Amino acid sequence: MRLTRHLNIRQLTSAASRDFEFMSYMISKATSVNKALDEAVPLCEPVLKIRKAMRYTLLSGGKRVRPMLCLASCEVVGGQESTAMSAACAVEMIHASSLIQDDLPCMDDDSLRRGKPTNHKVFGEGISILTADALIALAVKKLATSTSLGVSPERVLQAVLEMAKAVGTEGLVAGQEADLAGEGVSLEEDKAGLEHLEFIHIHKTAALLEAAAVIGAIIGGGSDEEIERLRRYARCMGLMFQVVDDVLDVTKSSEELGKTAGKDLVAGKLTYPRVMGVEKSREYAEKLNREARGHLEGFDSIKVVPLMSLADYIVNRQN
Amino acid sequence: MRLTRHLNIRQLTSAASRDFEFMSYMISKATSVNKALDEAVPLCEPVLKIRKAMRYTLLSGGKRVRPMLCLASCEVVGGQESTAMSAACAVEMIHASSLIQDDLPCMDDDSLRRGKPTNHKVFGEGISILTADALIALAVKKLATSTSLGVSPERVLQAVLEMAKAVGTEGLVAGQEADLAGEGVSLEEDKAGLEHLEFIHIHKTAALLEAAAVIGAIIGGGSDEEIERLRRYARCMGLMFQVVDDVLDVTKSSEELGKTAGKDLVAGKLTYPRVMGVEKSREYAEKLNREARGHLEGFDSIKVVPLMSLADYIVNRQN
Repeated sequence: MRLTRHLNIRQLTSAASRDFEFMSYMISKATSVNKALDEAVPLCEPVLKIRKAMRYTLLSGGKRVRPMLCLASCEVVGGQESTAMSAACAVEMIHASSLIQDDLPCMDDDSLRRGKPTNHKVFGEGISILTADALIALAVKKLATSTSLGVSPERVLQAVLEMAKAVGTEGLVAGQEADLAGEGVSLEEDKAGLEHLEFIHIHKTAALLEAAAVIGAIIGGGSDEEIERLRRYARCMGLMFQVVDDVLDVTKSSEELGKTAGKDLVAGKLTYPRVMGVEKSREYAEKLNREARGHLEGFDSIKVVPLMSLADYIVNRQN
Repeated sequence: MRLTRHLNIRQLTSAASRDFEFMSYMISKATSVNKALDEAVPLCEPVLKIRKAMRYTLLSGGKRVRPMLCLASCEVVGGQESTAMSAACAVEMIHASSLIQDDLPCMDDDSLRRGKPTNHKVFGEGISILTADALIALAVKKLATSTSLGVSPERVLQAVLEMAKAVGTEGLVAGQEADLAGEGVSLEEDKAGLEHLEFIHIHKTAALLEAAAVIGAIIGGGSDEEIERLRRYARCMGLMFQVVDDVLDVTKSSEELGKTAGKDLVAGKLTYPRVMGVEKSREYAEKLNREARGHLEGFDSIKVVPLMSLADYIVNRQN
């Protein structure tokens, strides 16, 4: 398994950027991540609904963008994929936890996610809330045990702090509070809406993508300067990710997205298309892509290819 | 402030166990903890409802049993109170987070806690759920920054792992799942109920008290053997705490408790009085107290006094 992955990476990185078989790389990474996630939440004793509920959302076939970002950031600073695998899984657990919470009746009240009923529709609200906690706790545990992969305790603690920051009042929860407050905003307020919108997305989406990249770079042994460059790259990626998400919400069907389309419009949410229109939103995403790629200048030209390609992938994604 | 506390401790520990002015000690510790908690969640920019909601529950005047247990465990292995203060605050944040969740409509659906409306009654369910997350994230952050107090990164990581264990499927969330499942259990099932009941309380109550003591001992520089003895002591304390809680629920009024009395009976919950009667429950609590104190044998006879007294305090508490 290890050998196959290593061969793939070597084959891929020997090609020039434009020829880079990014989808093979994504699939290879996603396969490794899915296997590690499956092993991280075994259905062991005592039998708990929570474990089933954790697996239900965690193994429901996401694109694994965050773990890939974590692994690729580890590799771009000279680290090994295997060293960052626990950290990559941890980041995906935090993401899964936030998805479960976002879908709750008292939040976005959503019934469809990745083409399946949402977690609380299957397990009930009480179990879902506990499942979100359990995923956060397991993420901390997985990340904290990275010392067994040869990472120094100092670096692991630094990574734990980055993760805590991404979850708390400097990250996800602040974004979700602003998102809840932003629903039903009238059109008169749209002029001042862009600032509010960026606050939401910097906290709700960009913070965890940033943590994914930064944690990967910390675990991989990156210098402070390398870590900060990857932080800025990931922050651009985070905003871009959300601009594209907003555009897809108004231009695609539920079937194409695997989740309820047009829900932002129904909820009266602030979105980029609403504030600046669909065309300007697309241009803004392109601008962020150029900025993101700019922050990668100076890294090894071969090793940086996956991160460059990931930016293109996100700006061009169709679901 | 430091000097006063030190004088108090010296004055107190110079007396024999039976004369120990435990309440002064408790108040002194609670005062230090309240000050540290107040500073840990400032109402800074950006203005968030979540920060207000965190402070609402965190600073609502609990007895601070868990932080005290953490600080006293640090001191009994030779550490300083100040070294364990961040850890003690972290443990109380986890506790506050679990209280907020337990009171939610989809959990115990409670409207009164410590004589005040519960968190979701004041801030709404969405904000309350985010607040619980924010408290967990801040707890991890506070604990992880204990290195700035001179604790080695290895020990801090070990403490972080203990905390993650207490929150996740080996602790609080497993206990809460079993608690939810235990409601409405018929009387026929009561014979097999004791095992289920102990599972709930070992996970829901004892796990965090255990973490409080163990984290204190880790941060204080305790040996593996000292850490394990404090773990066993705290586990007995945890069960005892819950036996007493169950007895109080059926023997005291809401006014005396500062929370809704008799609610376990109404919810059809498994409790010790229901399984073994009030008198046997009291005897069981006394037995656990003797066991808890037994695990403290071998520690410095002066330094151990607060932990001995805490066991007596918990078994005799009236609210």
